[in-house]
Amino acid sequence: MSRHDGRQPNELRPVQIERPYFGSAPGRVLISAGRTTILCTASLSEDLPPWKLKSENPTGWVSAEYNMLPGSTAPRKSRRTDGRGTEIQRLIGRSLRAVIDFQTLGPRMITVDCDVIQADGGTRTLSITGGFIAFVDAVRSVEDPTFDPSAVFLNSVAAVSVGVVNDVPVLDLDYPEDSTAQVDMNAVMTGDGNIIEIQGTAERSVFSRDQLNQQLDLAAAGIQELTRIQQTALGDDWPIADR
Amino acid sequence: MSRHDGRQPNELRPVQIERPYFGSAPGRVLISAGRTTILCTASLSEDLPPWKLKSENPTGWVSAEYNMLPGSTAPRKSRRTDGRGTEIQRLIGRSLRAVIDFQTLGPRMITVDCDVIQADGGTRTLSITGGFIAFVDAVRSVEDPTFDPSAVFLNSVAAVSVGVVNDVPVLDLDYPEDSTAQVDMNAVMTGDGNIIEIQGTAERSVFSRDQLNQQLDLAAAGIQELTRIQQTALGDDWPIADR
Amino acid sequence: MSRHDGRQPNELRPVQIERPYFGSAPGRVLISAGRTTILCTASLSEDLPPWKLKSENPTGWVSAEYNMLPGSTAPRKSRRTDGRGTEIQRLIGRSLRAVIDFQTLGPRMITVDCDVIQADGGTRTLSITGGFIAFVDAVRSVEDPTFDPSAVFLNSVAAVSVGVVNDVPVLDLDYPEDSTAQVDMNAVMTGDGNIIEIQGTAERSVFSRDQLNQQLDLAAAGIQELTRIQQTALGDDWPIADR
Amino acid sequence: MSRHDGRQPNELRPVQIERPYFGSAPGRVLISAGRTTILCTASLSEDLPPWKLKSENPTGWVSAEYNMLPGSTAPRKSRRTDGRGTEIQRLIGRSLRAVIDFQTLGPRMITVDCDVIQADGGTRTLSITGGFIAFVDAVRSVEDPTFDPSAVFLNSVAAVSVGVVNDVPVLDLDYPEDSTAQVDMNAVMTGDGNIIEIQGTAERSVFSRDQLNQQLDLAAAGIQELTRIQQTALGDDWPIADR
Amino acid sequence: MSRHDGRQPNELRPVQIERPYFGSAPGRVLISAGRTTILCTASLSEDLPPWKLKSENPTGWVSAEYNMLPGSTAPRKSRRTDGRGTEIQRLIGRSLRAVIDFQTLGPRMITVDCDVIQADGGTRTLSITGGFIAFVDAVRSVEDPTFDPSAVFLNSVAAVSVGVVNDVPVLDLDYPEDSTAQVDMNAVMTGDGNIIEIQGTAERSVFSRDQLNQQLDLAAAGIQELTRIQQTALGDDWPIADR
Amino acid sequence: MSRHDGRQPNELRPVQIERPYFGSAPGRVLISAGRTTILCTASLSEDLPPWKLKSENPTGWVSAEYNMLPGSTAPRKSRRTDGRGTEIQRLIGRSLRAVIDFQTLGPRMITVDCDVIQADGGTRTLSITGGFIAFVDAVRSVEDPTFDPSAVFLNSVAAVSVGVVNDVPVLDLDYPEDSTAQVDMNAVMTGDGNIIEIQGTAERSVFSRDQLNQQLDLAAAGIQELTRIQQTALGDDWPIADR
Repeated sequence: MSRHDGRQPNELRPVQIERPYFGSAPGRVLISAGRTTILCTASLSEDLPPWKLKSENPTGWVSAEYNMLPGSTAPRKSRRTDGRGTEIQRLIGRSLRAVIDFQTLGPRMITVDCDVIQADGGTRTLSITGGFIAFVDAVRSVEDPTFDPSAVFLNSVAAVSVGVVNDVPVLDLDYPEDSTAQVDMNAVMTGDGNIIEIQGTAERSVFSRDQLNQQLDLAAAGIQELTRIQQTALGDDWPIADR
Repeated sequence: MSRHDGRQPNELRPVQIERPYFGSAPGRVLISAGRTTILCTASLSEDLPPWKLKSENPTGWVSAEYNMLPGSTAPRKSRRTDGRGTEIQRLIGRSLRAVIDFQTLGPRMITVDCDVIQADGGTRTLSITGGFIAFVDAVRSVEDPTFDPSAVFLNSVAAVSVGVVNDVPVLDLDYPEDSTAQVDMNAVMTGDGNIIEIQGTAERSVFSRDQLNQQLDLAAAGIQELTRIQQTALGDDWPIADR
Repeated sequence: MSRHDGRQPNELRPVQIERPYFGSAPGRVLISAGRTTILCTASLSEDLPPWKLKSENPTGWVSAEYNMLPGSTAPRKSRRTDGRGTEIQRLIGRSLRAVIDFQTLGPRMITVDCDVIQADGGTRTLSITGGFIAFVDAVRSVEDPTFDPSAVFLNSVAAVSVGVVNDVPVLDLDYPEDSTAQVDMNAVMTGDGNIIEIQGTAERSVFSRDQLNQQLDLAAAGIQELTRIQQTALGDDWPIADR
Repeated sequence: MSRHDGRQPNELRPVQIERPYFGSAPGRVLISAGRTTILCTASLSEDLPPWKLKSENPTGWVSAEYNMLPGSTAPRKSRRTDGRGTEIQRLIGRSLRAVIDFQTLGPRMITVDCDVIQADGGTRTLSITGGFIAFVDAVRSVEDPTFDPSAVFLNSVAAVSVGVVNDVPVLDLDYPEDSTAQVDMNAVMTGDGNIIEIQGTAERSVFSRDQLNQQLDLAAAGIQELTRIQQTALGDDWPIADR
Repeated sequence: MSRHDGRQPNELRPVQIERPYFGSAPGRVLISAGRTTILCTASLSEDLPPWKLKSENPTGWVSAEYNMLPGSTAPRKSRRTDGRGTEIQRLIGRSLRAVIDFQTLGPRMITVDCDVIQADGGTRTLSITGGFIAFVDAVRSVEDPTFDPSAVFLNSVAAVSVGVVNDVPVLDLDYPEDSTAQVDMNAVMTGDGNIIEIQGTAERSVFSRDQLNQQLDLAAAGIQELTRIQQTALGDDWPIADR
Repeated sequence: MSRHDGRQPNELRPVQIERPYFGSAPGRVLISAGRTTILCTASLSEDLPPWKLKSENPTGWVSAEYNMLPGSTAPRKSRRTDGRGTEIQRLIGRSLRAVIDFQTLGPRMITVDCDVIQADGGTRTLSITGGFIAFVDAVRSVEDPTFDPSAVFLNSVAAVSVGVVNDVPVLDLDYPEDSTAQVDMNAVMTGDGNIIEIQGTAERSVFSRDQLNQQLDLAAAGIQELTRIQQTALGDDWPIADR
């Protein structure tokens, strides 16, 4: 069986990265997977959240915001924040925070903004994959000779969606697949293959442990490939594999 | 190894159900698991959401709201809605909708409200387990001789948390465990053991496929037990196992 | 004449108090009068309101929040805050503050939350009667050997509704009475019979001074009885009568 | 004893009425009592509130809004709506609705806006006294030969504050008195001396039945005088006494 | 050609100023131009905006708020803030700030509130003309012997609307003219004839440079006259012309 | 004198247009002028605003939204809507509506979204210039043989900023110029040189009629050039000059 766009079940959509993209933030990455296109920017400031400031030696923090531009879908997406967006930006934030040594980051605030420019499925996982690159760029931009950006990262993070479409587990669903999938799953993993977060939802349906395992196998392989793409983008002087 | 409250790793907290509890909604259940105590009410109306009304023969809908009462925690929880609450109520709604035949439900709106009265970990999963019972009660209260409430439900649904605490996978974490867990996972399953949703998050850490599998085994067994408790509450004339 | 539920005009509904109820706040009281059931919790903190902090030696403060749970009425009550709720929580706050010596309370913030679990008339007055008990419990929980909780209270406070139904003044209206009453009055008094607040409203009607006086007589007697019930709940070692 | 401004305890502040004042609403009254000055406008429309439209033959409705202009106090009052304003506008609305025959009013919506231009105590009661006049003017402006405006009003309504200052009950408190009063009471009565609403609050204090009665005597006499002032303003062809 | 109210194209509506008007702010001016009537108050405080406080020696600030009272138009204007109001209050603020030496003003916050009591066209420009007078009064009220209020003002400011109605450029449009104008322009100028702000909008139409110039000529003459009216109001001891 | 970036006073920044850009809206244009880069998308729907639907044969409507992406500036721009944004999107909407024949457009709703990706001055005027192209593309995408898109447009529209920097009038200010300008002016004109809107503001300063005229000359020439750029983008088969 081949998929509606000719891909194999275990095949990612082609990934493109444009970097540094337009903008004024220290990290700015335009990432696309097939038609899905997201602008990930990472900004740096010293305005820590209030609850951080209560401690005497506050460490840094990373927070994420996710937004779909109105023209990214047809019909137009209203700018009103909705529950789905809130849920997604919390996921992105947790995923990025999982690979950070906050002590080393120091009292710095990083905000990763993921603005979807073209939506065709998989926006939340691509936001994580691209957001990580923007995040690294922002940390690398710190001008402080006593600060070692590479020590901030315990690992790399990438994410991908998997699902069951017409009873077949497939990797990296686009919108036509996503909207007919029986199961929709998002996996967030480190570059060395451990799990940071998995979320699997049956869409008005259910799934078995076997199906879960098949999907996780697909996801693990896909994330390995995305990690190689991130490594290529970041360059050899920034090894993400062997931290 | 035994846990801080003496439980075995695979042991649920004792569950209590008071039903019908105080209130005016057709479904009203006070459910507790150890110290965690939640009031689940299910209300019935004919006010479908606007997007449902656009179709000519609108089917019903189920939506959930989750809220922590201010006195459920110390220090006091502010009444302001936050992102965590939004995320949780979306999970509860999806979980309940997964076992419903909306065609059979007809143009009816069910709102399941989960108000946490005492919070000690596992409020989102207990909301699903208790919310399902309130939901059944609300559907059973429909006064219409042509309506068969039992045909509305394709299955039962229950949920439980699992996690890794001090490197040991454990079932049904209470707050002291939850706040020190390396991994925190919520599983939502049907009465016959299929998965509706799983969400596993490493708390500033990561976990392996093996750990994931150990946790899912614990969760599956725990949900089986919770399903028996739901069956006992609903009574033998409402078989939830063999739909 | 007897009332629709068989009570005499000057007869209260039976009052039940469950204490300490579920929850994590130092004061937590489930109080019911007939079918009306309210969870009153009182929390303690050192987060004084900003306007208090402007003075050099800020004294404490007491504030109240009132909320009807969605399942407390049928049809379901939306969670949106409305003008009625704002008005009621201001009344509860004023009533509790009237019996407090803020100097003795010291720089402590008490928040009394009144969450209606079942609504059948008289929720605002029962919130005051039950809220006072939760309030005392919270003040008693202060762990400070130099602090005398009993000196904080100048008096006790309880409240009851009265009204004119079918031209007869009656005490403690339930919802069916309230919705047909010509006059609806709420009285808040101290344990020794002085008035803290009275609010009497003709419902699209008017009333005379004579009717006002008859109602106040009923209210005074009702509040005396409620004070005895509060005294019983708080115990003999906490005399509320002879401060 | 005389008061700080030389008035007797039972003496109202001088009342001025400018009518029709600037504006475009059919009813527009600038009313002052001493320094307190309020612009009351009454607008007429056919936009009934949604809950009214559910009935087949909807009758009219009257709603009120209360607002303090920023420059009405020093320091400046922020434009943010607060709980006090909500409480006051609900009182004004209830008071005006008490004297209306909604059947006769027909499917008309009246909105009475009370904007405080200068605040010196007693703004909520003066809003009612002045709002009634604007309300009558708006009803009189209906251009419909089959409509009898005088049949809409069952009675007139006026309001005044009373209080206990330095242990003496006094009528119509200004701000310096109000801010030191032991008891603060608002009475709303019809032109023929019946009570629509009374609200009496001890300010961190209590009061007795005797004090209540003394204050109600003062209020009744004050409202009689305000009714005469309303009658003079409305003119002899609009008798408010003998409906 | 004469205009619908008999004015010449270059003729202002008659201006009335009542000052000090009711209120408690140090500056309070009721200004009218024909039927358009606005209450301008200017309040003084030491609560500078947060962004000002970041500098070590914060200078003062001037901010404006614009609001239409509900009864100022028929049908009634809702109290909800809209985009038009936001745009207008930003214009008023910019216009007033253009003539101020903030260094001399010192760390003082002035808020100019413009509440429209009767709307008949030209409310934004009349708010500026009247707001300037209230502003001067507020600055003059500062009680500090080392402070020279006259040194705060670099110039005076007044504003007027111009437009093209039936192909004829006219000064100071009222509402009937405004609603049929092909071009609507607002000019804000200093007392000595320089431009602070011009905003010209074709209403679903366009206009030429020639028409622009004709309108600016009208505006300049009109503002000269308004400046004389401001001078008369402020008195000879406050010369606004020769700063 | 040459400018800090070497441009002549009357020289535009280089303009780049990428079209169709990523996205799902029928019109999508990435436009840049120097470093300022804006994504303009135009969406088409049949959801007319409620006030349009009150007429029997509602014509279409055009509305605009303006937003700065968080990473478009450093420090990061918060996503909160502010008064400046409201003012700008109202300007964009008015400008686009000025060149439309709504009767011909028919009952269609066009929303033009301008999301700033990189901000370096002149974002509001570039939004208009680029938004017009996206708007044309959206209208051209209507699939209806009876509809003539070219008849919808009465004219073209483009905009540019001018200002006085170091006493010299200059065209198309970038951010360093804008932040030190004495006068800041935005001109919106049609392709045939008529004015749709001009807004000129002295930044805590004033300007003369002469300066105004010099700036308008610069703006007119700049807009002519921008119109040629629009014409090139839209192609010869869409003549914007001779409507």
